Amino acid sequence: MTQMSDEPEGVSKPTGLRQFFPILEWGRTYNRSILTDDLVAAVIVTIMLIPQSLAYALLAGLPPVVGLYASIAPLVLYAIFGTSRTLAVGPVAVISLMTASAAGAVATQGTAEYLDAAMTLALLSGLMLAILGILRAGFLANLLSHPVISGFITASGILIATSQLKHILGVSAEGDNWPGMLGSLASAIRETNIWALAIGIPATLFLFWVRNGAKPALQRLGLPERAADMTAKAGPVFAVAFSILAVLLFDLEAEGIALVGAIPQGLPPFAVPSADLSLIEQLWLPALLISIIGFVESVSVAQTLAAKRRQRISPDQELIGLGSANIASAFSGGYPVTGGFARSAVNFDAGAKTPAAGAYTAGGIALATVFLTPLLFYLPITTLAATIIVAVLSLVDLKTPGQLWRYSKADFTAHLATILITLLAGVEAGVIAGVGVGLVLYLWRASRPHAAIIGRVPETEHFRNVERHKVFTVPHVLSIRIDEALTYLNARWLEEYVLERVAERPDLRHVILMCSAVNEIDASGLESLEAINHRLGDGGIGLHLSEVKGPVMDRLNRTHFTEELNGKVFLTQDKAFAEVSQDTGEPPEPVDHYMARGLI
Amino acid sequence: MTQMSDEPEGVSKPTGLRQFFPILEWGRTYNRSILTDDLVAAVIVTIMLIPQSLAYALLAGLPPVVGLYASIAPLVLYAIFGTSRTLAVGPVAVISLMTASAAGAVATQGTAEYLDAAMTLALLSGLMLAILGILRAGFLANLLSHPVISGFITASGILIATSQLKHILGVSAEGDNWPGMLGSLASAIRETNIWALAIGIPATLFLFWVRNGAKPALQRLGLPERAADMTAKAGPVFAVAFSILAVLLFDLEAEGIALVGAIPQGLPPFAVPSADLSLIEQLWLPALLISIIGFVESVSVAQTLAAKRRQRISPDQELIGLGSANIASAFSGGYPVTGGFARSAVNFDAGAKTPAAGAYTAGGIALATVFLTPLLFYLPITTLAATIIVAVLSLVDLKTPGQLWRYSKADFTAHLATILITLLAGVEAGVIAGVGVGLVLYLWRASRPHAAIIGRVPETEHFRNVERHKVFTVPHVLSIRIDEALTYLNARWLEEYVLERVAERPDLRHVILMCSAVNEIDASGLESLEAINHRLGDGGIGLHLSEVKGPVMDRLNRTHFTEELNGKVFLTQDKAFAEVSQDTGEPPEPVDHYMARGLI
Repeated sequence: MTQMSDEPEGVSKPTGLRQFFPILEWGRTYNRSILTDDLVAAVIVTIMLIPQSLAYALLAGLPPVVGLYASIAPLVLYAIFGTSRTLAVGPVAVISLMTASAAGAVATQGTAEYLDAAMTLALLSGLMLAILGILRAGFLANLLSHPVISGFITASGILIATSQLKHILGVSAEGDNWPGMLGSLASAIRETNIWALAIGIPATLFLFWVRNGAKPALQRLGLPERAADMTAKAGPVFAVAFSILAVLLFDLEAEGIALVGAIPQGLPPFAVPSADLSLIEQLWLPALLISIIGFVESVSVAQTLAAKRRQRISPDQELIGLGSANIASAFSGGYPVTGGFARSAVNFDAGAKTPAAGAYTAGGIALATVFLTPLLFYLPITTLAATIIVAVLSLVDLKTPGQLWRYSKADFTAHLATILITLLAGVEAGVIAGVGVGLVLYLWRASRPHAAIIGRVPETEHFRNVERHKVFTVPHVLSIRIDEALTYLNARWLEEYVLERVAERPDLRHVILMCSAVNEIDASGLESLEAINHRLGDGGIGLHLSEVKGPVMDRLNRTHFTEELNGKVFLTQDKAFAEVSQDTGEPPEPVDHYMARGLI
Repeated sequence: MTQMSDEPEGVSKPTGLRQFFPILEWGRTYNRSILTDDLVAAVIVTIMLIPQSLAYALLAGLPPVVGLYASIAPLVLYAIFGTSRTLAVGPVAVISLMTASAAGAVATQGTAEYLDAAMTLALLSGLMLAILGILRAGFLANLLSHPVISGFITASGILIATSQLKHILGVSAEGDNWPGMLGSLASAIRETNIWALAIGIPATLFLFWVRNGAKPALQRLGLPERAADMTAKAGPVFAVAFSILAVLLFDLEAEGIALVGAIPQGLPPFAVPSADLSLIEQLWLPALLISIIGFVESVSVAQTLAAKRRQRISPDQELIGLGSANIASAFSGGYPVTGGFARSAVNFDAGAKTPAAGAYTAGGIALATVFLTPLLFYLPITTLAATIIVAVLSLVDLKTPGQLWRYSKADFTAHLATILITLLAGVEAGVIAGVGVGLVLYLWRASRPHAAIIGRVPETEHFRNVERHKVFTVPHVLSIRIDEALTYLNARWLEEYVLERVAERPDLRHVILMCSAVNEIDASGLESLEAINHRLGDGGIGLHLSEVKGPVMDRLNRTHFTEELNGKVFLTQDKAFAEVSQDTGEPPEPVDHYMARGLI
C-alpha cells in the first residue's frame, strides 16, 4: 500500500529539542525542489492575503495597515515553532470580530487606545497560548464540543455579514449583537450612499460568482483545471483592482464614498503594547476566549490537512507556535492571529511543503507594505466589505441544527444555545454559554451512569442484564454490573443506586458489584464504596466485588478498604456468584426473569 | 432479616403531592408515641442550640439574637418541605464564616447594611436552592468532590478557630484569610484583656473535656450511659451559666470584658431584605457558593443518618426544603442556614422520629427569645468564642491528606489546593479553586480514556489486550477496544489515537473498533468517527465496528454514518475478526505477541 509509507518523516514522533523547534525536523531535508514548491504556494497565498488582511483589519475596527502588519512577523514565528506543514497563519474573520468586540468595550474605534487594546489582546492571547503549550494543556480545548464550535461559527458568520452591511450601504452603524446591529442599520438606511451601493452590490455578486461558478467557466474557456482554480482564488484581487479603477474613472472620492486612504508605507514598526494592569484586568477574559477559539479553529484545520498527507501535528506544540505568532503580532503593531481555513486550504492546494512557505508569504506581504500601499489609496471600503461578506457566509451552516436534533437533543441544545446567545448577547457571552451548557449537560449525564442488574446466562459463565436476557438469579444475591469509572461526578449516584436496589429486596444477603468496566475509582468513588459497605454491613448484607481491573485493585490495596469489606473480592463474577449463592439455609431457588416478568 | 423490613414507609418512593410535601407522608402515621419521642429530642436539641446559635451569629459578625431568629422559622419550613426525619437545620459554623466573608465585603459589621446583606444572602441562597430543586438540578452538587469538600471544611475549621482567638484574648482584630488574621492578631496581642483570658482559657479547656472525657467520667460517677451522654452534650450550657456567674461575682463588666449585652426580647420580626439590584450583583456569587456548600454538607449528614434507619431522603426535594428554610430565615431577620452535623446527630441519638421534632425545637427557641434573653446579658463573648473553637477544631482533619496522597495524586492535588487557597485567599476563592482544580483534573483524565489493542485468545471467541494476554492477531487487521463513552471531551483523543496506531502499521488493511464498553456516542464523538472513517478511506483502509450497544446503534442509524462507513458493523468482535482477516492475498499469518515480544 504505497499511501501507507508516504512521507514517513511526518509520522514518527520527534523528541528532544526538535520537539520544541519543529524547524530543526523539516529543515534537515530542505532542498531546491521543496523550495520551488514553497515559493509558488507563497506567491498565490500572498495575492489572496493582501485584500483579506485589509478586510479583516476593517472588521476588527482597525486601520487596514494593521492587517498587513499582522501578516508578517506572526508567519515567520509560526514557521519556526509550528508543527503543521501547510497551515497559513494570519488575521481571520471570527478572531477579528472578537477583537472588535473586546477592544470596543474599552476604547473607541480610530483612537490610539483602541489599537493599543488590540495589541494587548494579541500579547495576552499569545502568552496564554504559550503557557498552555508549555504546561501541555491543549486538552482544555476539549471543553468546546463540535456542536458549540459549529454554533459559534454560524452565529459569528451571521454577525460578521451583518456588521459589513453598513459599508455596502455607505452609512455608519454600530452594535455588538444582532438586534443592536439591525436596529442601528434600520435607522441609518435613509442615508445610504448610492455610489457605495453601486460598487458594493456588483462586487458582492462578482465575488459570489468567483467563489462558486468561476472555476468551471474558466475551464470551459480552455484553462487547465489547476490554473482555473488558482485564477478563481485570485478573484478578490480583480474585485479590488476594478473598484479602484471605478473610483478613479468616476471620481467617486468626490461623491463621499469611503476609501482606504493613505496607508503608512514601510515595514511594521517595533511596537510595545502598553498592557497596563487595568487594561489587562478588562481584557484577560476576551483574550482567553480568543486564544481558545483561535486554537480550536487552527488545530482542526491543521489536523484535517495533515491527515490528507498522513502527517502529524502536535496540538501542544501548536499552542506554542500560535502563542509565539501572537506575541510577535503584538510587538509589530498587529492584532490577534490564528490559522485560517480558506487560506490554509489554498496553501495546501498550491503545493506548500513546509512552514517555510509561510515565511515566504510574510516576505511577500512585507514587499506589499513597502511598494504596494500607495496603489490602495483609492480602494473603496465597500469592496473590502463585499470580500468579507462573501467569505463569511460560507461559515453559516444551516444543515447542522437539523442533524443534531435528530441525533442528540443534548448536543442540539448546546448548539442552539450557542447560536442564540452569540447573536443576542455577543461573541464572548456566546462562547461562555456554549461551554457552560455543554458542561452542565455532560455533568448531568455523567451523574447518571449506566449500571445493570445481572444474572447468569444458563449453562455458561456469562452474566447479562436481567431486563434484556433470559438469565438466572437467586433471591438472596444481587449482582450489579457498573458500566462506568467511579468518579466524584457519579459517586453520590452509586450510593443511591445500590441502596435503593437493596431496599427493594428484603431477602437479600449478598451484593456483588461486577467491576469489569470500572477503569478508575477516584477518592470520592472509594468513599462511596466505603459508605455502601458500612451501610450494607449495618443491615447484615455482605458486599463483594468481582472482576476488578489490575490497576484499580492495586490502588484499593493501598487503603484499608479490602480489610474492612464485609465480603470478598473475586477474580470472576462466575466464582463470586457460585460461592455466595451457596450461603443459605434453603437451596437457592433460581428465578427465570423472562417468565417472572411475563415475557414468555 | 428484621432490619430489612424496618420502617418500610421510608423506603418506597413517594409520588404526587406527597413528593413535594413530605409532611403529608409522615404526618399520616403520626401518633402519641412518636410525639413523645420528638418532644424529648426537641428539648435536648434546644438546650444545645441556644449557645450555638448565639455563637454562630457572633462568628457571622451579626448580633447574637440573629442566631436565635435563624433557629425558628427555618426549622418550621424545613419540617414541612424536608425529607430527612432527623436533620437539624439552623446556623452552622462554615456557612456563618462564609456569611461573614460575603457581608463583610459590602458593609461594616454592626451596621444595618451588614444585617441587610446577611438577610439578602439568605434570600438569594434560598431562591437558588429552591430553583435548583424545582429544576431537579441537585446533580450540580457533584461538582464538589469529597477531597474538595474535606479540604474546604478543614481549612474553614482553621480559619474559624483563628478568627475566634481575638475574643479569647479580648482584643479587636480583622482579616478574611489566615495570614491577614494572624497578622492582625499579632499586632493586637499587647492589648490582651487578662479577664477575657481568665474566662476564655478555662472555658475552652472545660469544653474540650466535656467533648472528650466527660461522658466516661459521668458514667464512673454512676450515671447511666444515655444520661451521661446527654449531660455531656449540655456542657456548653454549663459553660455559659458558669461564666455568667463569674461576670456577676467578680463584676467583670467594669473590667472591660465584652458581654453579649441587651438582646431584644420577643419573637423574630417580619423583616424584608432590601435585595436591591447592586447588592444582588455583589452577593449572587457568594450566595451561590453558600447554597452549594450548605446543600452538600446537609445532604451528606441527612444521607448518613437516613441510612442508619434504612430511610430515604430525596436530594432534589432537600433543595426545596433548605431553600424554603433560607427564604423563611431572610424574612424573619435571620441569615443563611443549613443542616448541621453535630446537632443532627444529637437529634438522631435523642430519638427524634419525624421532622416535627425540628418544629418543636423552633418552639423551644421561640420561648427562649421571649423569656431567656435577659439572662444572657452578662454572658461573656469569650465563652461563646470558646464554644466555637472547640466545635470547629473537630472539623480539622489531619488524616485525609496522607490517605489521599497514597490513594490518588490527583485527588490529593485538589484537596491541597482547596486547603491552601481557602487559607490564603478566603472561603469563596477556596471553593471556586477546589471546583476548578477538580474539573481540570477530571477533564485531563477524561481526555485520555482507556483503549487497548486486542487479539483473539486462542481457541476461544474472547478478545483481550495484546499487552497483557497471549493472543493472536494478523498483520493487516487492527482491533481496538474502546473502554469509554465517546464524548466531546475525548473525541479529539480518539482521532489521534486511531490515526497514530494506523501510522505505525504500514501493512494495515482493516481497523475494527470494538464498542462493547461504549455507552454513548455524542455528536462530537460521531464527528470524530466520521473523520476517522474518511481518513482511513483515503488510505484504502476499511473501518469496521463490532459489538455496538443497542441504543447507540439506534442513534447511529438515524444518521448517514453507517451508509458512509468504509466497512461493516458486526454483531460480535469474533465475527468481525473472522470475516475481515480473510480479506488478503496471502493466508493470514497469526502473530503470537507473547513470543514476538520475547515474553515466552
